[in-house]
Amino acid sequence: MKHLLAIQSHVVHGYVGNKAATFPLQCLGWEVDALNTVHFSNNTGYGTVKGTKASAQEILDVYEGLKLAGLSYEFLLTGYVPGEEGVEAVGKVGEDLKTNNPSLIWLLDPVLGDAGRMYVSEKTIPVYQDILKSGKVTLVTPNQFEAELLTGIKITDRETLKQALTAFHTTYKTPYVAISSLSFSDNDNILYSAGSTLDKDGSTSTYIYEFNKINSYFTGTGDIFAALLSDRFYTYHTLKPVPDPLSVAVGEVLGVVQQILKITDESARKSGIKRGEIGNAESMKQCELRIIECKDIFGDATVPYKAQTI
Amino acid sequence: MKHLLAIQSHVVHGYVGNKAATFPLQCLGWEVDALNTVHFSNNTGYGTVKGTKASAQEILDVYEGLKLAGLSYEFLLTGYVPGEEGVEAVGKVGEDLKTNNPSLIWLLDPVLGDAGRMYVSEKTIPVYQDILKSGKVTLVTPNQFEAELLTGIKITDRETLKQALTAFHTTYKTPYVAISSLSFSDNDNILYSAGSTLDKDGSTSTYIYEFNKINSYFTGTGDIFAALLSDRFYTYHTLKPVPDPLSVAVGEVLGVVQQILKITDESARKSGIKRGEIGNAESMKQCELRIIECKDIFGDATVPYKAQTI
Repeated sequence: MKHLLAIQSHVVHGYVGNKAATFPLQCLGWEVDALNTVHFSNNTGYGTVKGTKASAQEILDVYEGLKLAGLSYEFLLTGYVPGEEGVEAVGKVGEDLKTNNPSLIWLLDPVLGDAGRMYVSEKTIPVYQDILKSGKVTLVTPNQFEAELLTGIKITDRETLKQALTAFHTTYKTPYVAISSLSFSDNDNILYSAGSTLDKDGSTSTYIYEFNKINSYFTGTGDIFAALLSDRFYTYHTLKPVPDPLSVAVGEVLGVVQQILKITDESARKSGIKRGEIGNAESMKQCELRIIECKDIFGDATVPYKAQTI
Repeated sequence: MKHLLAIQSHVVHGYVGNKAATFPLQCLGWEVDALNTVHFSNNTGYGTVKGTKASAQEILDVYEGLKLAGLSYEFLLTGYVPGEEGVEAVGKVGEDLKTNNPSLIWLLDPVLGDAGRMYVSEKTIPVYQDILKSGKVTLVTPNQFEAELLTGIKITDRETLKQALTAFHTTYKTPYVAISSLSFSDNDNILYSAGSTLDKDGSTSTYIYEFNKINSYFTGTGDIFAALLSDRFYTYHTLKPVPDPLSVAVGEVLGVVQQILKITDESARKSGIKRGEIGNAESMKQCELRIIECKDIFGDATVPYKAQTI
């Protein structure tokens, strides 16, 4: 069995954080240990939400329990943590796991915000930067806005994209970087994904993928991207190694994520919703990712997107 | 889609409570909203455990969040809740859901203890009795010890079994009762399951199933039984109605649970563990139910156990 520890949010209803990651990874044969950083009724886009946040000490305590039980992991997936002390705690967990098992793969999804708006305190930015500087993170998956916040480089075209991706390799020594979706002002109907690998000789391979935008708002897209990428990256990095595991993995994951979004969008439209709108609970409910309906496609590799080197 | 709210424990590692219930129900096509009553590193059988318990107020708050988001359910599954105030809170949630939707099916698994030992305070017994007396519970799934605690009838043979099961109909007006496993002193190698239905004319149909004991200790058996029974009972009660949905459902669920236990036991033995032993973390880890490996058998109906009327 493949053992993965996932540290991110739990929502009772809907699909973000661990709720988005767990079922697909289980379907792909992973034993998923889900350490929840919040316990919320639903994602915050509904306009109303109730629940509790785990303190940094609670996160560390539960991790201590896992150590006492003698558990070990091949993969660590970390995502949304509310507040800088919690992020520090998750950093300690990652550092400890990696120290005890240098072959552990750590995918860090630095959840800070999206589309120019921060979800969390600005104080978390330097904490994520310190974690990245530790050199323990294998693969980082910021979105466009988060990549800008962490590198200080505004991404407006392929050139600045390349600079930002490369900064993760040079400033933070993170060998693999992936961005699930980004846009330039060139075309409103086109989105891009991007990846970058620090090669063994110190050079970098940077690539971009292009796809059509679906005109709606979905939550959890970054979370399902990171979850599926955990599986595919592990496959092509460790189980069936290929020269650049990230570029193959991102191409396949994009194919699956685009199918999930298409199924979700069609299903939402059938229920009478034109598009998801933040703060409108009914539209958010209808735009929840159709994770359950998609159970047979998580492993699909039939429509991989092709990487273009930049 | 079928919408189920599950209120029980969460463990980061392993399969009890919601961690045992969620994946199988999702595989069977349910949208599972998982409201967690505890957030523990692992089940308590390991000898060490770390984590937090949700207060009664936290349970009610999260439920309030679900109401604000306008969510509704066809099925409510409630299991382990630590402490009588939490049980009272879950009772309020069930009563509110049932009042708003009289066709809601509520499966209540009254988790009190097992094999003569209580897990929770004795003060929870009258709270469960009050919930049952409300008449809102559709199906109750105590184990042998819990059925004895709730009815005051010691179950030693078929006659006392029948008395205890019938007491749930007469004292509490609960129409359906099921016990996943029980034993008499007649034969150490044989276990039984039992069910009872309060018929429309006020009479009761009580039945027993016999199967061979696997000589090991597994946690989460009652939880996977209750989860699969939620699916099967809903199928035969609501989707494809049959005259006594419970007896068909229990027969099928037993067939699946026995397969899961067999696969788990064989896998544990291959890892060098002779049997699960409470307090021995290594043996408990190896005896965790093989939920992920069993993903294709949850819906199996090929080896149903046959009910014998008693």
